[in-house]
Amino acid sequence: MPADTTAPDSEQLDLVFERLVALPPEAIWRAWTTPTLITQWFTPAPRETIACEIDLRPGGRFYSVMRSPEGQTFPNEGCYLLVEPSKRLVWTNALGPDFRPATGSPDGLIITVEITLTAEGNGTRYHAVARHATEAARQAHAAMGFQEGWGKALDQLIALMTRQQG
Amino acid sequence: MPADTTAPDSEQLDLVFERLVALPPEAIWRAWTTPTLITQWFTPAPRETIACEIDLRPGGRFYSVMRSPEGQTFPNEGCYLLVEPSKRLVWTNALGPDFRPATGSPDGLIITVEITLTAEGNGTRYHAVARHATEAARQAHAAMGFQEGWGKALDQLIALMTRQQG
Repeated sequence: MPADTTAPDSEQLDLVFERLVALPPEAIWRAWTTPTLITQWFTPAPRETIACEIDLRPGGRFYSVMRSPEGQTFPNEGCYLLVEPSKRLVWTNALGPDFRPATGSPDGLIITVEITLTAEGNGTRYHAVARHATEAARQAHAAMGFQEGWGKALDQLIALMTRQQG
Repeated sequence: MPADTTAPDSEQLDLVFERLVALPPEAIWRAWTTPTLITQWFTPAPRETIACEIDLRPGGRFYSVMRSPEGQTFPNEGCYLLVEPSKRLVWTNALGPDFRPATGSPDGLIITVEITLTAEGNGTRYHAVARHATEAARQAHAAMGFQEGWGKALDQLIALMTRQQG
């Protein structure tokens, strides 16, 4: 059975990032689902993503390791929930591989992320939502710099995929 | 993209309940996915399930309310992950509706449950797995009476659906 349409975003519990991007949905999808591309854009500099593993199916693993400029590493274990190529990608770190409940996350942040890609003109409407359990979790995530961080990461994705297209 | 085959069960982290049942997979599936049936079998007597809501799709709500003989009520909020009619049903209470991270559960137990139904002879191989984040969580669930509870609930399911078939 297919998943229903996307749920409406909640002002109290969700953080939303949206931008019109001059890339086709397929290029953004590739950037989000290819480990060797993820390591090149996923984390705003000067932090970097130094490892990534992807098993692209509901219940499959989405693993990445972030490294700070000081050399600290932060492994992140997640699980894909919905995989609709070039349209919608949903994953969470509340679960690990095979939907197993997770033990936590390095920064204490537990989220479900939904990326929706919609062709618009010659580009893509890029809509990202981070869903939280509580208003306090949403506020903590906002204070960690959600908007700026997702903006910088998307800038890096666009630069990378524009070079790849050219 | 379809989900992959079922993951192997983990001896350290999973609790497994299995039985050969003299009902077709379709009858067991109906019992698991129909609110007016769930309220008749889901909770071992003398406890009972007094309410149930089901939105049967990945990301859809699986809500039930259990009542103790003393009249205490325990609402349980969950989310479906995989819905393969008469074959496989996966849900978790680590997430709520729309895959939103959950705030907890009334008894502190966070699990992902996978029910697999396989036709065998004139009946069904009923395989249920509860996946936990840690060995401690698995042990706590076992101490709560997992095997006995799931056995009694399945007895109730069989009695109910045998009457319905007759």
